[in-house]
This record gives sequence, structure tokens and C-alpha cells, in this order.
Amino acid sequence: MTDYVDVDFGDNGLVPAVAQDVESKDVLMLAYVSPDALEATLDTGFAHYYSRSRDELWKKGASSGHLQTVSEVRVDCDEDTLLYLVEQAGGACHTGRETCFYRRIDGEKVAERVFDPDDVYE
Amino acid sequence: MTDYVDVDFGDNGLVPAVAQDVESKDVLMLAYVSPDALEATLDTGFAHYYSRSRDELWKKGASSGHLQTVSEVRVDCDEDTLLYLVEQAGGACHTGRETCFYRRIDGEKVAERVFDPDDVYE
Repeated sequence: MTDYVDVDFGDNGLVPAVAQDVESKDVLMLAYVSPDALEATLDTGFAHYYSRSRDELWKKGASSGHLQTVSEVRVDCDEDTLLYLVEQAGGACHTGRETCFYRRIDGEKVAERVFDPDDVYE
Repeated sequence: MTDYVDVDFGDNGLVPAVAQDVESKDVLMLAYVSPDALEATLDTGFAHYYSRSRDELWKKGASSGHLQTVSEVRVDCDEDTLLYLVEQAGGACHTGRETCFYRRIDGEKVAERVFDPDDVYE
């Protein structure tokens, strides 16, 4: 391990991480990161998160193949939020869109499907 | 109020909101949003958050003048994260940078100051 900024993982041991496409600059998703997930991300170059629903370390795309290759990790001024700059394989969203933010708050969909989730998730 | 997607504010009544510059597409900051903050954002067109440290509704830029004019609010697939697309006056970060994500995880600074915080915050 090289020297890293001392991330404040707070009371629950997790920080939010924003994944942004390094090319299009689209914001793809937000998920939570544990110290282990951050270390796995930095060690492997693939985005890892902590799945709060499954309560386990989560390599994004491990089952779907929609891996995120991380080109840079940034930390915010308060050191309690991360930004992953990634190349996204397939799409980030389990609904088949490139981004999880495919709807406006009024419900209007602003992004098309880039894959059929039935083909990817069983 | 028009119809909005039913946001899941969870146990603590807050969701994370990512603010992204609508022009440059830079991710500017992440903060938390209460139902009142979301409603104030949609009603006024200026980004509102909930300050966890001050425990109050927070109009971004109210004291610094660095307001965020919101052009669109998006919600993610799980309906527990928001994306504010904004025009940022001044800079989003209290350190004087346009973005709070001005450092790589190794501590290297990747963004310059756009204002002097001593001139803005007393």
C-alpha cells in the first residue's frame, strides 16, 4: 500500500462512492464502499463496493460481466465521499441502462436500454 | 406539486444527492437531501440540501453566494439517490475549488482554486 488520504468511513464503516464514466462523464451510479472494498479497488483496478443488501464485498460486474475498470479514484474535501472514474463494460444499471440515473424526478425516462437485463441477470 | 417518483428516504430521512455541472459534466459535490430539501429545490430551482452538521435545511450558496441553479433532478433505479444537474456560481467547494473532488486518493491535487476562500467565508 502506498500512502492514501485518510478516508473517514464514519459510524457504519461505509462511504458513498460515485461512479462516473471517464469518457462520457455521465454519472453512472452511487454505491457504498468499505475499507476492504476501497483496498480491493486500488489493488485490482476494478471497482469494488460493499453490498448493503447482501452484506458482502461486491465486485461490480462479477456476475453480469459489466465490470468497471477504474482509471482514477478521487476523494472529496471532507474525505467522506469517493469518486470512481471508470470505463464501464455493458451498462452500470441492472435495468439495462448505461446509467442508474435514467429518470428525471418526474418519472420521465431520459436514457434508453443498452442491454436486455433478461439476457444478463437470471 | 406535480407527480414525482416516490423517493426512498430510508431510516434517517435523507438521501445522497450528487451535484454535477450541467455544462462541464464535472461532479461537483455530494450532500444529503431531506424531503423538505427536495421540495425546496423543485419549488425554487436552487439546490437545497440538509446540513447534517448544522442539522438544518441548507440552501447551497446562501452565505457564500455560490448558488447552484438546478436544470434537472434525476433519481436512480433504486430511488434512493438523486442527481442534481446544476449551473454552479463561483465554486462548489469551501476550499476554493470548483469541485470538492479536487484530490486523487493518493493526495495529489488535480484542480486549482477558482476563488480565495478567505474572501468568501468569514
